[in-house]
Amino acid sequence: MNKNTFILKGNILYSKTKTELSVTEQGFLICFEGISQGVYPQIPDAFQNLPVIDCGDCLIIPGMTDLHLHAPQYPFRGIGMDMELLEWLETHTFPEESRYADTDYAQNAYHIFAEDLKQSATTRAVAFGTIHPRATELLMDNLEATGLKTFVGKVNMDQNCSDIIREPSAKTSLDVTVKWLESVAGKYQNTKPILTPRFAPTCSAALLEGLGKLQKEYRLPVQSHLSENLSEIAWVKELFPWSLFYGDVYDHFGMFGREAPTIMAHCVHCPEEEIKRMKNNRVYIAHCPQSNINLASGIAPVRRYLEENIPVGLGTDIAGGANLSMFRCIADAIGMSKLYWRLIDQTKKPLTMEEGFYLATVGGSSFFGRVGSFAPGYEVDALILDDKNIRTTQNLSARKRLERYIYLAEEGGKIVGKYVAGKRIF
Amino acid sequence: MNKNTFILKGNILYSKTKTELSVTEQGFLICFEGISQGVYPQIPDAFQNLPVIDCGDCLIIPGMTDLHLHAPQYPFRGIGMDMELLEWLETHTFPEESRYADTDYAQNAYHIFAEDLKQSATTRAVAFGTIHPRATELLMDNLEATGLKTFVGKVNMDQNCSDIIREPSAKTSLDVTVKWLESVAGKYQNTKPILTPRFAPTCSAALLEGLGKLQKEYRLPVQSHLSENLSEIAWVKELFPWSLFYGDVYDHFGMFGREAPTIMAHCVHCPEEEIKRMKNNRVYIAHCPQSNINLASGIAPVRRYLEENIPVGLGTDIAGGANLSMFRCIADAIGMSKLYWRLIDQTKKPLTMEEGFYLATVGGSSFFGRVGSFAPGYEVDALILDDKNIRTTQNLSARKRLERYIYLAEEGGKIVGKYVAGKRIF
Repeated sequence: MNKNTFILKGNILYSKTKTELSVTEQGFLICFEGISQGVYPQIPDAFQNLPVIDCGDCLIIPGMTDLHLHAPQYPFRGIGMDMELLEWLETHTFPEESRYADTDYAQNAYHIFAEDLKQSATTRAVAFGTIHPRATELLMDNLEATGLKTFVGKVNMDQNCSDIIREPSAKTSLDVTVKWLESVAGKYQNTKPILTPRFAPTCSAALLEGLGKLQKEYRLPVQSHLSENLSEIAWVKELFPWSLFYGDVYDHFGMFGREAPTIMAHCVHCPEEEIKRMKNNRVYIAHCPQSNINLASGIAPVRRYLEENIPVGLGTDIAGGANLSMFRCIADAIGMSKLYWRLIDQTKKPLTMEEGFYLATVGGSSFFGRVGSFAPGYEVDALILDDKNIRTTQNLSARKRLERYIYLAEEGGKIVGKYVAGKRIF
Repeated sequence: MNKNTFILKGNILYSKTKTELSVTEQGFLICFEGISQGVYPQIPDAFQNLPVIDCGDCLIIPGMTDLHLHAPQYPFRGIGMDMELLEWLETHTFPEESRYADTDYAQNAYHIFAEDLKQSATTRAVAFGTIHPRATELLMDNLEATGLKTFVGKVNMDQNCSDIIREPSAKTSLDVTVKWLESVAGKYQNTKPILTPRFAPTCSAALLEGLGKLQKEYRLPVQSHLSENLSEIAWVKELFPWSLFYGDVYDHFGMFGREAPTIMAHCVHCPEEEIKRMKNNRVYIAHCPQSNINLASGIAPVRRYLEENIPVGLGTDIAGGANLSMFRCIADAIGMSKLYWRLIDQTKKPLTMEEGFYLATVGGSSFFGRVGSFAPGYEVDALILDDKNIRTTQNLSARKRLERYIYLAEEGGKIVGKYVAGKRIF
């Protein structure tokens, strides 16, 4: 029998809709060749002969997608947090990223990152590397080894940043990108390239134009940053005075959702026109609440994005965000939506736990296809959660245990099993 | 030699001022009979004969004070967070607190709480119990056994709450409180009673008046809640129409800092007059950032309080806050001060890491006397922090390691030793 064919028994929860959980206490999740056949209170006759993995009283939930993070920034997460974005980039980020020219350093750092990500709640991730093609390939090698499924981008940037991290010209940036794409083509099962202009300010028009062409030629998805910080937005307007709004720059060069699946991180301060364009173009928003706190960027209007049916997922934005935990990311997203409601707009109701959970699972995971749910037809990414060390005197429902786990994952929770597309990771 | 006399060797950090750390890498903290004699790069001649405890490459920092938490709410932390204060109290808090009428339940729950608190970064805490005198005494028994130093309050509330948790009259509430005070008088070395009107809305004028008298008679410190939520503030004005502001109610009855050391939790929405009164009366503010997020209360103006030299510390406010970790509490305080700056008032600079650390140590600990620092004359509350599992490729200064620990305590940090007033806890 295919080893990705089995039944998980335990307390199974997943998002039935954006606002509603499916909860089956002591139920059975049927995984057939990596694909869910649904969750049942009893094993259906057709699946009686499948091996059952009994997870006891554990919770079983879908794996989570970290829709935005910077792998090379992992070594300095939690450091230098007393700054805003642009100063932080020059002071901490660019000097650190320049070190990845050294492949030994890169291998060492990415090995740590990949190992920690493997142990986390994340089953899928979309990651920035650096400008360095060899280091980025090492990142991909290390991620491939984890069994997680990821998109990884070699960063492009040819202006407006420290020399140490600037590519010498648009042409060089593009040539190196092509070389990297050729080098990794077909090399991995789980790890795919994604086109990664760092953000509009550090990309010349020539570079953006070339990247737009590469996108078409290689049919690549795209990731970048958008409307994170007010100074950044003003800067983009200065650099691209013809643009109607920040995202219009990416769109002008064919990298804003119309031509290719696209993720834009942050979207804290989007004007109306930008939101409309994102909606029309089906741009994914990677909401990174902790990063938006740490870099004093503000609070993104996630409720609005949900109301507009713009695809939204969550990102840790390592190292703008310090924590790798997607549970923490959910808690932060819920918390910030409460402050958005209290401080900015009382027509925008806070996210419920169910909605936060949806964002971290189906919301972001849909970038990878039918992922993030246990409904029939979805790839089985699953986490087995042991919460017995989050001690209580109460008998809690599975739903309450999940809520509690989101808030207390790092104070006693333990992920004791993890599957990606039906394959056991640990 | 007195067993509370020793030298700790390691990377020692403490707040020299509100804004500045003292950092001594591979230094020596001299503890003589529980009192710091200072931190030195080499052991001074006078202390050469003291035993040295080598903490290797660990960080050594002062223990932290949790200035506001509700011990009976520990069993449901992280649950039911999708509500505002007044609804949350009726739905979750009061039903749970009513269970502490059952002393078996109370013993079980408080034992868990005390054990977890012992393992945490907290060396001192100021805690609410419930209305139940016997349960509150059990809480004190359990806390005493940990070696931590705490103030614990039997809660008083005789109106405007579910029957299940309301004391039948002011007189009964006062009588029971006296009985509790007599029962615990002189019983503990580390655990002291504190007068605890729950908050103005649930206390009749007769009760508040009686408590004011008890305060004088027993010379007790006081704790309560203040200006947490806008509906709550409006309610207080309705109930006590003569009051100039919420805190004026407590002051009127002699429980607002003038007569006794007083802690007011939250202070999110204080009007000018209230801030002025707190300043004049030297009222301690327990800033509880995570609770203010979870219950959508808002963001307290901590920078303002620091500028005014009002005494401020941090509180987890379990279970309004879900996390027991004071490191998390510091990170939340810093983060919320950034959003306060961004969203509310750009004249109020965000807290630096140094200021957040100060609040959690000296800021709140000063409620207990000379505590929270390693400067000569302070009681030695100390934490030994092992951060080797927060992996990095970088060689970090002790200061950066501390910043990182604040953000990542729960993602790889480990407290491997803890002292309270020079006594080893573990």
